[in-house]
Amino acid sequence: MGSKSDLRTMSAASDVLRQFGIPFEITLVSPHRTPHRMVEYAENARKRGLRVLIAGGGGAAHLPGMVAAFTTLPVIGVPINSTLSIQGLDSILSMIQMPTGVPVATVGVDSAANAAVLATQMLAINNARLTDALEKYRITLKDRVMRTIEELRKGGFQDDV
Amino acid sequence: MGSKSDLRTMSAASDVLRQFGIPFEITLVSPHRTPHRMVEYAENARKRGLRVLIAGGGGAAHLPGMVAAFTTLPVIGVPINSTLSIQGLDSILSMIQMPTGVPVATVGVDSAANAAVLATQMLAINNARLTDALEKYRITLKDRVMRTIEELRKGGFQDDV
Amino acid sequence: MGSKSDLRTMSAASDVLRQFGIPFEITLVSPHRTPHRMVEYAENARKRGLRVLIAGGGGAAHLPGMVAAFTTLPVIGVPINSTLSIQGLDSILSMIQMPTGVPVATVGVDSAANAAVLATQMLAINNARLTDALEKYRITLKDRVMRTIEELRKGGFQDDV
Amino acid sequence: MGSKSDLRTMSAASDVLRQFGIPFEITLVSPHRTPHRMVEYAENARKRGLRVLIAGGGGAAHLPGMVAAFTTLPVIGVPINSTLSIQGLDSILSMIQMPTGVPVATVGVDSAANAAVLATQMLAINNARLTDALEKYRITLKDRVMRTIEELRKGGFQDDV
Amino acid sequence: MGSKSDLRTMSAASDVLRQFGIPFEITLVSPHRTPHRMVEYAENARKRGLRVLIAGGGGAAHLPGMVAAFTTLPVIGVPINSTLSIQGLDSILSMIQMPTGVPVATVGVDSAANAAVLATQMLAINNARLTDALEKYRITLKDRVMRTIEELRKGGFQDDV
Amino acid sequence: MGSKSDLRTMSAASDVLRQFGIPFEITLVSPHRTPHRMVEYAENARKRGLRVLIAGGGGAAHLPGMVAAFTTLPVIGVPINSTLSIQGLDSILSMIQMPTGVPVATVGVDSAANAAVLATQMLAINNARLTDALEKYRITLKDRVMRTIEELRKGGFQDDV
Amino acid sequence: MGSKSDLRTMSAASDVLRQFGIPFEITLVSPHRTPHRMVEYAENARKRGLRVLIAGGGGAAHLPGMVAAFTTLPVIGVPINSTLSIQGLDSILSMIQMPTGVPVATVGVDSAANAAVLATQMLAINNARLTDALEKYRITLKDRVMRTIEELRKGGFQDDV
Amino acid sequence: MGSKSDLRTMSAASDVLRQFGIPFEITLVSPHRTPHRMVEYAENARKRGLRVLIAGGGGAAHLPGMVAAFTTLPVIGVPINSTLSIQGLDSILSMIQMPTGVPVATVGVDSAANAAVLATQMLAINNARLTDALEKYRITLKDRVMRTIEELRKGGFQDDV
Repeated sequence: MGSKSDLRTMSAASDVLRQFGIPFEITLVSPHRTPHRMVEYAENARKRGLRVLIAGGGGAAHLPGMVAAFTTLPVIGVPINSTLSIQGLDSILSMIQMPTGVPVATVGVDSAANAAVLATQMLAINNARLTDALEKYRITLKDRVMRTIEELRKGGFQDDV
Repeated sequence: MGSKSDLRTMSAASDVLRQFGIPFEITLVSPHRTPHRMVEYAENARKRGLRVLIAGGGGAAHLPGMVAAFTTLPVIGVPINSTLSIQGLDSILSMIQMPTGVPVATVGVDSAANAAVLATQMLAINNARLTDALEKYRITLKDRVMRTIEELRKGGFQDDV
Repeated sequence: MGSKSDLRTMSAASDVLRQFGIPFEITLVSPHRTPHRMVEYAENARKRGLRVLIAGGGGAAHLPGMVAAFTTLPVIGVPINSTLSIQGLDSILSMIQMPTGVPVATVGVDSAANAAVLATQMLAINNARLTDALEKYRITLKDRVMRTIEELRKGGFQDDV
Repeated sequence: MGSKSDLRTMSAASDVLRQFGIPFEITLVSPHRTPHRMVEYAENARKRGLRVLIAGGGGAAHLPGMVAAFTTLPVIGVPINSTLSIQGLDSILSMIQMPTGVPVATVGVDSAANAAVLATQMLAINNARLTDALEKYRITLKDRVMRTIEELRKGGFQDDV
Repeated sequence: MGSKSDLRTMSAASDVLRQFGIPFEITLVSPHRTPHRMVEYAENARKRGLRVLIAGGGGAAHLPGMVAAFTTLPVIGVPINSTLSIQGLDSILSMIQMPTGVPVATVGVDSAANAAVLATQMLAINNARLTDALEKYRITLKDRVMRTIEELRKGGFQDDV
Repeated sequence: MGSKSDLRTMSAASDVLRQFGIPFEITLVSPHRTPHRMVEYAENARKRGLRVLIAGGGGAAHLPGMVAAFTTLPVIGVPINSTLSIQGLDSILSMIQMPTGVPVATVGVDSAANAAVLATQMLAINNARLTDALEKYRITLKDRVMRTIEELRKGGFQDDV
Repeated sequence: MGSKSDLRTMSAASDVLRQFGIPFEITLVSPHRTPHRMVEYAENARKRGLRVLIAGGGGAAHLPGMVAAFTTLPVIGVPINSTLSIQGLDSILSMIQMPTGVPVATVGVDSAANAAVLATQMLAINNARLTDALEKYRITLKDRVMRTIEELRKGGFQDDV
Repeated sequence: MGSKSDLRTMSAASDVLRQFGIPFEITLVSPHRTPHRMVEYAENARKRGLRVLIAGGGGAAHLPGMVAAFTTLPVIGVPINSTLSIQGLDSILSMIQMPTGVPVATVGVDSAANAAVLATQMLAINNARLTDALEKYRITLKDRVMRTIEELRKGGFQDDV
């Protein structure tokens, strides 16, 4: 995260990672206010055992792209629709339009949960337990929709002709 | 890819994957014209040994998001700026704004090469050879910039005060 | 509908259809969380006697376009301006920019009522009762405007020079 | 169509309708230059036996919306990206954001062919021949994709790992 | 105005016209719900002695453009940012992008007051009293700014180095 | 006009004014490069007998708005889509979003002809000859559409069912 | 500032300048309501000893660009997201897209504080005290981030794996 | 500059600086491909005697913002409309929307010349020679407009009523 105000949005990522039993750390790294911390953080990430980085930011959201410049780990960007944002569109474009060789895997506006799911999918490439967990998670998503349909039906919701 | 016209854009991904020595397949799967093929392709992808999927598309680019709905493999989306696109912005928004649980790792407009680099980064998480290859690739990118500086300097380009 | 939160918007369609005496069903079908249900729903729609499909969605709204891929019934799309939407513009573009052969009849942001009117217009093509009902509905719309003018005039509203 | 220059775009609709054996007429009706012609055309459309109207327009594209105001037939709008258009976005918004009661079924930018497919789908609601024709058309679309895959494969295109 | 909800925005125009002593009428004319009333209103406007028309509208705001099609009086358009608007941008584009020969004099989003000032300027072309009134109005605008500066200065506002 | 490159766009206005027999002058006034000339031009416009001002500009198009600040004559703005423009949208917004009291009558992108028609409409408010001329001009527009229909019909164009 | 309502946004600039010990004045200058005051203010700015100008504005924000036309002092523009703004995007484009020779140094939406920091950086070019102050300010920004990290860590915030 | 392809755009800045007799250097610094070079370049800029930095970039243009994070010199950003840009709007937003404390003075799309003029204005704050040069430059701009008027007048261009 680039600032404390991003915490509310980004904590959704922690919830998902915890649910998948994936150890993680969450910290503040501001590309513009603590740029050296960002360089060090990104450069040491792989050595320290980190395997995927999730970086959120609002406005001119340089954090994911700059972190990506200092590491070859996959970097996931979360555009944050902060107070001064232009509907989050400024951050989407700041993250997504990277030059050849240094991609940022960008997810939707404020979609920190999805960033965590994507990170899990990356880690699951060679991890049977996570692959299983993801399949189960999908079933949960589906079951939740099906349960909602049941509830609506009971509540007099007109489901069938 | 969703259509043959996307081939020109997407072949940049093949070039990068070949360079990294990563086996891959490239094929046409249209979400709207061959929807069953898409369902089967996505559902069987993991079983068939695929580990990352790259899906490009223009206009209402549903391919990456729908493929992601039928697999838990990571899916990378490449918005393609085709003739009828609105600057590729329609495809960016069609890909990036996915609901919670089913992310698409979206890269820049027409950035098929970056999709391939991102796929390589994902595969490199547990692969020392690819990690090394990525580090070398980065050095190549840097060297190319440095060489350009040299050339410009020789060509009378004013580099220093 | 793709999610329960869309119900508030989409129920306006039910009100209109009920008013026209058109039998209908309303249910949840998530393209990303219940993709197989979506395939089945769309594929069986014609056989089950459905004649027009209305599909709403927010963000990367793939439901109408993907339903259209699995049926040749006319599909009407309703872009929903949900919390994370970019003014509904992301959903408009996700729905409207379909490839040749698989159209979605897209209506305005949150315009579920209009989707139902459009469905009624389609059904009225060969239905004298519905054609009459539509003509009467139009007169109602007009009368409501004329009554408002009367009220404003009585309220001291300056209507004429 | 609102102007002669729209003919090039709109003729794609004729091709599709001819293919489906649907009788049609195509003419110029300018909402701003021949407004009375537009009123008459729209008001008499149903009596004259027309069953669906397709209206294209660029810029401030009022034709579909205004035609819809004078008839209860379904009206399909085709935003045209003309020289002075803002990427066709001005026409999309001019067509799609209609008030309650008077919908326009809007398709993608320059998607006249899709407007014709949508019209066919509407007419097919109560027409077994057209329903069959639409199913066959879909198979054609699919076959064309499959044939392209074959051709690419023969051409040395790397289709499988 | 196209609907009663526009009244709150458009009444600012009445205030300005009253201030300039210009007789006016304000009424509802919906291009889509009372299209014949619109045609008649626009066609008779000049004969009835109206000299400038101000038309406001939200969403696909066809009123000003269609009124302009039925009269050669100058028509001023006021884009209204209603609930379902896309920041008023949909209405700006619906009004401003008119075809050659049928202009709409478009003012800013919700700028009904400015529409009235513009109407006054048009009427003042051959009217010395209104020309004077406009000059005085400008002085009032200036004086109000100057008075605000005075007040801020008294309130400890730091005006000078 | 703000620059010589605008001449090609703006000369369409001259053609229309000449056609209506309205005397006019056309000159360069750059708000940023000849700001004093702009102030003088705008301030003296009424005294010199000018009755309507048409001002075109690209990019940050301040000319119409600033001219309007120095005169109470009606000012018509023409957004010009120059090389560095963002589809003319930057100029539309620069012109249209004026503060209360100082309106600019904005027309479509590159619509200099329409600016001239609008100016004619303003002058016609108290001018029977111009009113007649405008009515005839409208008939011409209509006739041109009708003639095109004839031509297309002769050319084998399918006009009727 | 162009209007009193901008004061709330622009006062953030005063706070920053006071903090750096830079004498300043803040006043209202409306480009459209007090255009002569604007001309005089801009023309006399250098003579009066001003060295950098900060100009904020909403909507069609002409103040910075027009002030820049009447002085060769550097002018910093602050786009203000006022009630009628289109997300501040109208003001960004009104300020940034200046013609060659008359630049405006534009900062982010509502970023008055940043305008003041930028002004300080300009003044610091030849001022050792301000250069020092800026370096210290940066350290403060960094320290604030580091302190937040400490606080979050104490509050049970999971900072490390 | 971030890449060699930016050279064509950025060289306009060299021309202006040369014209003002301001010594400068122009070099390639890619924030993503040579990130350490960028850090060093920005950190040493002040010590090496640089006084203003101009940074151009296309797409997700992080160069100006990141350079600004590593120096307290004023940084001017030039959004470049490269092949894959979204009309330069992506780069404008990437540059302009900086967090408090680290501004980028952003100029228009491809406006490298204006970046150089702005740099000259900053340097002129305490430099009488440059102040004079800027005043003369403005007169040149004005004279060029006036000369164009003369030429147009001679060429039969209708300048006066």
